[in-house]
Parts: sequence; structure tokens; C-alpha cells
Amino acid sequence: MLKIFLLTLLMISYTTIADEGMWEPYQMEGLKKELRATGYKKNISNLSDLFKHPMNAIVSLGGCSAAFVSDQGLIATNYHCIERSYLQFNSDAKNNLFETGFVARSKEEEKKSAPGARVYVTLESNEITKQVLMGVKDETADIERAKIIEENIKQIINNCETTDEIECRVRSFYSGETYKLEKVLKIKDVRLVYAPPAYIGEYGGEIDNWMYPRHTGDFALLRAYVSKDGSSKEFNKDNVPYASNSFLKISSRGVDDGDFVMVVGYPGRTNRLLTFNEIKYDLEVQFHEVVKFLKRGIDLINEHSTDEDGSKLKYRGLKSGYENYYKKISGQINGAKNFKLLESEKENWNNFLRFIDKEASSEDKQYLEELLELVGEEQLESRARSYYGNSTLIATVKRIYRNAIEAEKVDSERKPGYQERDQENLVNRIKSLNYSFDARVDKEIFLDRLKNYANIDNSYRRPVYSELLGLDGDFVETKNIVEGIYSSKFNNSKTFLQLMELSIEELQKSEDPLVVFANKTYQESLDYEKKYEARSARRQLLKSKFIGILKKYYEASNKQLYSDANGTLRVTYGNVAGVSLKDGVIYEPFTRLEGIPQKHTGKKPFNASKELLELIENKDYGNYLYGPINSVPVNFLSTLDITNGNSGSATINSDFELVGLAFDGMIETIIADYKYIPQARTISVDSRYLLWTLEKLEKAENILEELVITK
Amino acid sequence: MLKIFLLTLLMISYTTIADEGMWEPYQMEGLKKELRATGYKKNISNLSDLFKHPMNAIVSLGGCSAAFVSDQGLIATNYHCIERSYLQFNSDAKNNLFETGFVARSKEEEKKSAPGARVYVTLESNEITKQVLMGVKDETADIERAKIIEENIKQIINNCETTDEIECRVRSFYSGETYKLEKVLKIKDVRLVYAPPAYIGEYGGEIDNWMYPRHTGDFALLRAYVSKDGSSKEFNKDNVPYASNSFLKISSRGVDDGDFVMVVGYPGRTNRLLTFNEIKYDLEVQFHEVVKFLKRGIDLINEHSTDEDGSKLKYRGLKSGYENYYKKISGQINGAKNFKLLESEKENWNNFLRFIDKEASSEDKQYLEELLELVGEEQLESRARSYYGNSTLIATVKRIYRNAIEAEKVDSERKPGYQERDQENLVNRIKSLNYSFDARVDKEIFLDRLKNYANIDNSYRRPVYSELLGLDGDFVETKNIVEGIYSSKFNNSKTFLQLMELSIEELQKSEDPLVVFANKTYQESLDYEKKYEARSARRQLLKSKFIGILKKYYEASNKQLYSDANGTLRVTYGNVAGVSLKDGVIYEPFTRLEGIPQKHTGKKPFNASKELLELIENKDYGNYLYGPINSVPVNFLSTLDITNGNSGSATINSDFELVGLAFDGMIETIIADYKYIPQARTISVDSRYLLWTLEKLEKAENILEELVITK
Repeated sequence: MLKIFLLTLLMISYTTIADEGMWEPYQMEGLKKELRATGYKKNISNLSDLFKHPMNAIVSLGGCSAAFVSDQGLIATNYHCIERSYLQFNSDAKNNLFETGFVARSKEEEKKSAPGARVYVTLESNEITKQVLMGVKDETADIERAKIIEENIKQIINNCETTDEIECRVRSFYSGETYKLEKVLKIKDVRLVYAPPAYIGEYGGEIDNWMYPRHTGDFALLRAYVSKDGSSKEFNKDNVPYASNSFLKISSRGVDDGDFVMVVGYPGRTNRLLTFNEIKYDLEVQFHEVVKFLKRGIDLINEHSTDEDGSKLKYRGLKSGYENYYKKISGQINGAKNFKLLESEKENWNNFLRFIDKEASSEDKQYLEELLELVGEEQLESRARSYYGNSTLIATVKRIYRNAIEAEKVDSERKPGYQERDQENLVNRIKSLNYSFDARVDKEIFLDRLKNYANIDNSYRRPVYSELLGLDGDFVETKNIVEGIYSSKFNNSKTFLQLMELSIEELQKSEDPLVVFANKTYQESLDYEKKYEARSARRQLLKSKFIGILKKYYEASNKQLYSDANGTLRVTYGNVAGVSLKDGVIYEPFTRLEGIPQKHTGKKPFNASKELLELIENKDYGNYLYGPINSVPVNFLSTLDITNGNSGSATINSDFELVGLAFDGMIETIIADYKYIPQARTISVDSRYLLWTLEKLEKAENILEELVITK
Repeated sequence: MLKIFLLTLLMISYTTIADEGMWEPYQMEGLKKELRATGYKKNISNLSDLFKHPMNAIVSLGGCSAAFVSDQGLIATNYHCIERSYLQFNSDAKNNLFETGFVARSKEEEKKSAPGARVYVTLESNEITKQVLMGVKDETADIERAKIIEENIKQIINNCETTDEIECRVRSFYSGETYKLEKVLKIKDVRLVYAPPAYIGEYGGEIDNWMYPRHTGDFALLRAYVSKDGSSKEFNKDNVPYASNSFLKISSRGVDDGDFVMVVGYPGRTNRLLTFNEIKYDLEVQFHEVVKFLKRGIDLINEHSTDEDGSKLKYRGLKSGYENYYKKISGQINGAKNFKLLESEKENWNNFLRFIDKEASSEDKQYLEELLELVGEEQLESRARSYYGNSTLIATVKRIYRNAIEAEKVDSERKPGYQERDQENLVNRIKSLNYSFDARVDKEIFLDRLKNYANIDNSYRRPVYSELLGLDGDFVETKNIVEGIYSSKFNNSKTFLQLMELSIEELQKSEDPLVVFANKTYQESLDYEKKYEARSARRQLLKSKFIGILKKYYEASNKQLYSDANGTLRVTYGNVAGVSLKDGVIYEPFTRLEGIPQKHTGKKPFNASKELLELIENKDYGNYLYGPINSVPVNFLSTLDITNGNSGSATINSDFELVGLAFDGMIETIIADYKYIPQARTISVDSRYLLWTLEKLEKAENILEELVITK
């Protein structure tokens, strides 16, 4: 009995071997030793090539990751990644897919997606730093620098986007120290194949969100379609399944404790390469501000949205986003405290400063000083910036107004975001308001945010905007003004689309109070945009210099630096492992089916169905019994280093088989976005639970036959 | 890495071998097989003899258990067992022993205890069922039965108590199916030797109460003194340390995971032999009533006690008792639900009924039916009974009044509780009010309880009492009446003692409103007392019949029955073992020193001192490092079966060395009082933490030298 401790200790110390990092594939060759230490025995070259198996089976849904799992365009991702564009879009009061779940028993039964739902397949990725910065020097004035970079990027994208099925993105790495061009195929016809009922897909809901032990069946299946000629087209019944270059087999054997695993996906954002001043501000001020902002947002939605007018359903997505982020930031506040982040980062920063003192040029020192000044300036303005705006109604009409102005120019001279290539996206955004916007609720949220904005010192507020809304007077008057603006006849998706048909001349003539407001604030918005662009260009220069020294600092101690997450494809590798975060408590690496009835209360979010409970009661494990836990594993932990955006990423074993889908982190270590923590864990839903559900609960034989299941 | 699961499973299934049971020592011989299975290898005869080592080292503090740990009367028990009579009694605003802790560096420095604080050493224990029931038959009328039993018991005690240092108690086992006479030595001079500061002794306070992982140093040391001639006397500086017949050595090696351990102590009360009707009522009604009652009590104390007048300190004990019980019952409510207690007990009961149907006589069946009727009757009255009274002021004066009446009779005819032998206790109870009673706070609590009482249907209320307090009229009037009663000049310890000097004639002449109230309610109280006594005698008969059948039922499946806990010495044996109560979470058997800084916030109850934190930070483990956890163990779990009253019990290894002090159970399984649950665990403070604290933090060399420490 003694041995459990020795093993526990082994496990805990073992995990500190696992390397942090959201690596770019090209960096994998340099990590040979570390990869071998985690137990990876295969060829490493596959892992460093974006266009070889398994990398080329990995796709993005925009905000989520996913993977092809058949030769007929079938895609596996998280349930929570398809809620808005697939479940909410296809649900109404009568037919609520959240409650019933959905299984297409044939391709004909598959459901189409909301406008703008896409699958993005990476086709090319190239470094283009020189092209982006062509014509700028360190001494170029900020406004000029911003303009040149914008023009260069526009040019690069223009040259790259040869057809409308291609999207090209210039991505900044290391805060603009490096740029890369990502060329992706936009698959426009994506259909819902399978989603479990919410009592599986989001079992535990907000309560279990970011928590472990977890019992969430956070999986779903989509299918990508293209036209018969292979080009990407919008939904059409003649479209055919997309045949990807490769796809992942699904393992029914799954993983063991300690096994090598990796995740390839599209993490959205981390903040691991900040200056100490930025970390300190985020931890001490910004986190608390954001938490307040989000909490208030949740309360406002609860207060003002109703079942009767359908607004509750419309704001379901925003609310759950707020809640998710609220819990995350709250966890980061606690994590920062528990792991003494500020203290350790202060020490790291001081070491870095000592290095600079010795090794950096006086010019670089000057740049760093200036960077810290700029950071300080932005921090002073940050509160005003978060409470400015917050009206979807006004923002939408301002965007339509701006679009009309840009439409007067030739395409190449238009502002990015308003070019020909952006029109489809603009229309889709407006269409999506149909099921995510209600003018009444929007007004209430706006008014509340505006009150906070009004209370900010007016030197930080936009003067024209403040004047028009009467922010220096009695707020009762402001309310009347806002009522006036919201009395506009343009107040929903349909009328916004009508408005989009108007020319700038027609808009400028309009007496509609909302359009008038957009018109009157146009010049100020433009001025602020320029100001921020100039500053952003300056930041790009200063951060590049900072990263330059940081790279030298890392090299000096023989370490590879990796760029903060930026929505591009990254690889993280590690091992299946439990964890102890509190003395005396061990989280096991796997949870069991039996944990579901343990949590079941009959009420959402713990409302398992009778059918599911019976299958578990009867120990009807089928082929998915995992001996060591004497049950079917539901979720498992691993040492992988992921963040938001990685949701839906395939967790794969060393044979490149899908053994799970990553879907969450743990609240206790979520501060890892700021600093990697060895105790941080990724929660994946186990492939055995996915297969068990499809077989036992859903009896989805057509899907099981299509998947390539390994034993 | 796989093996951790196998071990975990082993561990969990292993614990189901460990036998439930709070056994009487004589039953140990019948448990040879089970004892061997848990790893006990020594002679079993020692465990079955109350008067051999180690049993004769075990003592009671009344409500808590304890053990001799030196040949000079040194006693180890829990910190929470000495708070009232030793710490609160010796503390005031200037000198707060809760904050400083206390170490007597020599015998001269030891602190005396509050009046009435005792150590009880068991001298004899004999079955006396026949003597108690002599002269009663099944058909004896209830009132007569009650009277005979009372007289028999009085006689037995009278014959037994030959000197005033001896106390004799007739204890009912199996609800009166069996009676035993316990003869104990009352040691009256007990002194405080050592108590850690509260940040160790109750680290985690109410928050961690009933919880694991735990980091509480719940230990303290007392010393028993007797006069030079060996007789027990009140505090006197000429008294000498009591030399017990045996004492426990203290192990510095401690226990390993899986080791055999046992606890010998005085568990207070369990309810494992109830009828289903009683369990159902407790679970569905009574638990919720009690929780409400306690919660309100806590609120009332918070609302009405203040630091300024010292009432907050006075009600500290009552409040913490309420809180403790509140948390316990709340845990029992949840535990009953989680372990589906009602469902399983229903099934057990049905099996029992089937057995009765076949095996019991029609007479016994009739008795059982009657028992269930009686139980139902009592349940109807239970609410009124809990809200009746609740005034310490009135109860105390009524007791004094009754005492004066009984004083008129010859001693042998007085009511038990008012005899010569009880006078000391009556006086001590009044003296203790000095530091645990405040008339103002008492009045507020009484008024609130009275309001609830007034709202109960008057057929359940006492008519004279209700009439006198105007409970059927406006409660404002009741308030005035209560104010009148509380305006009495008898309102504290000192004046109560003066009142006790008066004869019944003097009392009856008194015009003091409180004494008048006691006088006017006297007859009614007596009537109710008789009614309850008659019913209790009936219950004793009916329960004896019930237990008779139950014993047959157990015998039929070859099982030994053990009596519910009743404050007599019991043995429980088992193993050191962690536990998993929720899928995916394992509680390790040991907690570590490092858990203390993890929980430290600087605020009570997590306010470890700088000194303690530094010792831990420096890993200054001394000789107490336990390799498998790489630290000094603070608390540990075992499968022992204990309940309230076991607090302070020595946890001993198979060499009869003290390896810990049992102090708590786990909230999740505390429903075990109603039904043994294999996952139930006892939390002990580890002997290594006690020794480490004495050596490293307290530098209490005098104490360490006195203890016999084994390696």
C-alpha cells in the first residue's frame, strides 16, 4: 500500500519533464530530445511539416479547431464549438436541437449551417516579414509606418487571394517581430452530422466549466462539402463531400496513463512574452476591471432578456461567452495569487534587466524605456476604451456607413475590412444578428455601459460622441437621446441589409436618428482610428526590438523561444497524467461513466437521460471498457499546453490516431496563459466515450461505419 | 504509470474488508478472523480485557476520550476537548490562551481547570440487567415499571458509590435490552500542561471542520492529580500526579499507509439499530428541523452577543457547538441522499419484516406494532419538545427550586439528579455559567424560541406554561411577561448560588418573578416528567422485544450485533487508508506540513504564524520526516468507525503505541451514525506532527523528556 505514494511522487515530478510550449511545427526538429523524453518514438519530420499527415488533417473553424476523420469530409470537433452556428441556427421553440441532440442517419438528413460558418484548411504558410516591412525604417514616423505596413499587407493579400474560395491572412508573430502569410481554403458548405443532447455535450454546464473531475461529452461531427469541380461553394444540394488530403483514424483502444499525446490546433491568444509592466497591470488592475464588466454583462442579459420575445435564446451565446470568460479571469486572479506569479515574474524581469544592462545596446535600452512608456499610456486609456461603444445597433450602422464611404473608392484603396473580399463577411455578420440581436436588450446593455463611460474623466472620453450623447449633463437626458437613436427603423438584420443597399449620398441625406448619429461621429471615429494605428505601428517597432533582446536572452541560456498564440497552427506534446494541486488530493487522469450518475440531479446541467443512466447502471460498456478503471473513460487529463482556440483540437497518440478531443483547461492553472505552470492540464473527451455514445446511446451505425476505428 | 489505478482499486476494495463496528471489548474474541484480516498479529486477549494494557490507559473526560501517556498522570487528548474548561476558563482579554497557546515548562506552571472538569477512569464494568429489571414483568403498568426501574437503579448506584471519588453509572445497551454498571474513579484535580496556539489547534476552524484534506494540530496535554494518599481530591497544591496502571508510549515512527490501527474510546451516540419508521422520520423531517433550529441559534448569538460586555466570549462555546452540529446534520442530509440511505434501509427493513413474518411470535409482532405506534406518537410531539424551554435562566432556577423540594426528603427517596451525590455537579453547573451565560443574550434566545413554540398547535403545548407566558395572545404581551421574569435579581452564577441556600419555604414565599414562575410551573413540569417516564418505560420494554428479534435475525445470518454507542468504552479497528468519494478524485491517506502554507491566508482560521511557516519553508523536519510523502505528516485517514465522543481517542498501532489522536470524521460519510458506510474515514492528527510541534515550534523539552517516545 505504500507504493501509491511513490508512484504519485513519480507522477508529479515526472510531469515537470513535460515541456511547455505551443510550438510552431518548424520548431519540432529542435525539440528532438524533449520529444523522446516524453516517449515519442516515431519520425519527427512528420510533426514539422504542415502539409504531411497528421498536420494536414487539422483544420480551423475560426475560433475553434477540428480534424478530418473520414475520406468523405467528416470533421470532429467540440460540441461547444458548434452550438451557435449549427444548433442555435437549426433550433426553434418547437424543435430544440440542444435538448434532442441530432443524428443524421444519412447524408440527406444533415443540417445546413448559419451564414458564414466555415471550415478553414491551411494551404500555405510563409514568412513575409521583409515584404510587410518593406519601405519602413526604424526612424519612419508612426503614421507613415502604419500606412506603409497597411498598404504592404493589402498588396500581399491581394496577390495571394486569387479566387474567392481562398482567404489570405498576414499573421503577426512575436508582436510584429515576424510576419507570416497564411493561405487557407474556405469551405463554405458545412453541415451538421451529429451532436449529442446537451445533457451529454455540455453535461455540467457552467458549473463544471474549467473544472475537473469532468464528465462532458464535448464532441460533435460536421461534414465539409464542395462543388463537384472541387471548388468551394455555398450550400447547394449538388455539392459533394470534400476529400481532404489526409484524415485521422479513431482509436477505440484509447490511451493509458503516462502515454505520449499531442494536440495540433489553433490556440487563440497567450500573453507569455509581456513586459513586467504589462503583467503587473493585467494582474492588479485589468483582471478586476474585466471581471466587473463581465459580471455586469451577465446580470444585464438576465435582467432584460425574456423567453416570451425570444431574446433569451438570442443572447444565450453572448451570455455563455461572458460566463465562460468571467470564470476564466476569476480563475486567473486566484491562480496568479496561488502560484505567486507577480513575485516570480518580478524576479524574472529583474534577471532580464540585468542581462540588458550587460548585453544590450544603449539604443535598445532606449527603445525598451519607450515601450514601457507607451504601455503606461495605453493603460491609462484602457477603462475608457472598454466602456466606449457597446451598442451593437450603433456599431453595425457605423460599419454600414463606413462601408458606403469606402465603396466610393477603387477596391485597392479601400480600408481593409471594407474591400470587395470583405463584403461577404459583412453581410454574414449582419445576417447572424437575426438570431443573436434584439434592439431592446441591446439598448439596455448600451445604456448601462454608457453610464460607466460617462463617469470616466472627460479627458479620456471622445468629445464629439460625449457631446452628442449629452454625457456631461444629466443622464436622464442621455437616456432620451439614446431612446431617440434606438427609435430608428433600422433595428434588425433585415432592415440593416436594406440600409446596406444605400449609397453614401443617400445615407447622408437620411433623417433617421441612427444614421444621423453614425454620420456625425464618423470623422471622430476616423481620427481615433488613425491615432490608434499610429500607436500600434510604434508598438510594433518597439516590441520587435524588445523581442530581439528577449531572443538573445533565451539563446544565452540555450532555450528556444516560441511565439505567443495567435490563431495559427501550433503543436503541443506531453503525456496523459493526473495531478495534485492541493495537498492530500489527487485528480486521477481518467473519469468514468459512473461519475455521470454521481453528479446527476435531474436538473440542468446535471440532467442525464434515463436511457444513459440505464446503460451505465447495466455496465453496458461494449468494446470500450478500460480495465485499469473498470469502466469506459469519459474525460482524461494530459500535460498538454493549450488555450482558448484549441477547443475541438484532436488529441492524438504517437500513431497519429485520434484518442480524444481537447476541450478545456483547469481553473486552478488557467493563469498558464501568462506563464506556463507544470501542474497545468488539458482536459480531453476520450475517444472511447465518443464511440460508446455513438454505438450504445445513439445507435449511429452509419457514422460508425464511416469512421476508421483502430483497435 | 498504469499501476496507480490498480493500487487505487485495490485500496478501495480493500477497505470494504475492514469491519464496521464500535465493539464492546468482550466481543473482540469473536472477531479473531476479522482482526487477523486487517493485519493485527498480536494476542487478542489484551483487546478484550478492559483492565489490561492498553485498555486501562484509556480515560474519559466526559464527552471526550483521552489516554495516559506517562507514569506521572500526563494525558493526551484533542485541543477541541479542552477549549471550554481549560482555555476559556484561563483566558481573559489580556491573556488569551487561544491566541498564545500554553506550555507549562514545569509542573508549577500548569493551569487549573474550570469547576467540574474531570477525568474518569473506569474501575469496573458489569452486566446488571436482572438487577435493574428486578420486580418488573412485561405486563407491569408503565408508571409502575418506570418507578421500579428508577428505584432499582438508585439502589444499585447507592451500593456502588462507596466514596465520593467514585461515580457509578447504569448504562443502557440496545435501548434497555441490557444494562451495565460502570464504576469510575473521578479525578477532580486536572491541570493544563500544553495547548498549541489556535492557529495550530484549530487550524481551518469551522471551514475545515468535518473536512479532508485537513491540517489541524488538534492535540493538547493535561495532567491528573490526586492527594498524597492516592484519593481523588479537588485542586490542591499538595496534590501529586496520578500514577495510572498503564500508559501509552508515543511513536515517532508513526504509521504507514495500510497499517493496522485501532481506536479505544467513548463514542457518544449512534442510531444504527432504529426501526425504519424512526430513520425515515429523522431523515425526512427531524434533520431539517434541527438544521433550522441550529442555524437560528447561530444567528441569534451573532446578533446579540458583543465583545464589549464579554458575552461574545461567553457564547463562543455554545456557538461553536451549534456550528459543529449544524454542519454535521447538513452533511448527514446530503450523505443520506448520496448513499441512498432511505432506499437501502427500506429494503433492509422489508427483509427484516419478512423474517419476522416467519420467525417471530404473534406476541412479538404485536409488540413491534405497538413500538411503531409509540414512535409515531413521539414524532408528533417532537417539534413542541424542542421549542419548549430554551431559557437557561428559567431552567437553572427551576432546577434550584426542585432541588429545594427534594432536599426535604431523605436522600434515598430523592429524585435521581437531586441526591447528595448530585449536589457537587449541580453547583459546578451553576459555577460554569459564570463564563458561559449572559442573561441578556439568554433572554433574546429564549424569546425567539418561544415565538416558535407559541406558533405550535396548543394541543401540543404545556397549558400552564402557555397560559403564564400568554402564548395564545399577542406576542408583545408575552415579551412583557418575559421581561418581567428576566428582571429577577437572580441572574448570574453568584446570585444563583445564593438562591441555592434558600429552603423550599423561603422560595415559596419569594416574590421574585423568576422564582414565582418556577413555583407556578412546578406541578406541570412534574406531571410531564411522569408522563415521559412512563412512556420511556414502555419504550424500554418494546425496544427490548425489538432487539430480541433483531438479535435472532443477525444470528440467522451468522453476524454479531453490537450496541449503539452510549458513552461506554468501545473498540474499533481497521487500517490507514485514503479514499475516493467522487469519481476522479482520490484523498491521500496523509496530509503534509506543506499543506499548511497552501491554506494560509493570514486571516483566522488560516493564520499560521511566521515561525511555523518558516520551519516549513526550511523543511526543518527533524526526526519526523516520513519518506513516502517527503514531509512530516499532519493528519491521516483510517477506516476506523467512530463518532462524537471519540474525540481525543488515542489511535494506536498493533504495538499499542499512540500514533495519533482521532478528532474528526468526513462530512461526506458522517451519515455513518445511521448506517455504516465502507467509505467512512476517521481523521487523526499524526503523532509525528505532535512531536514535531513540541520539539521544533514549542521547544518543550520538559514534555518530550517525560513522554516515552518509541522509534
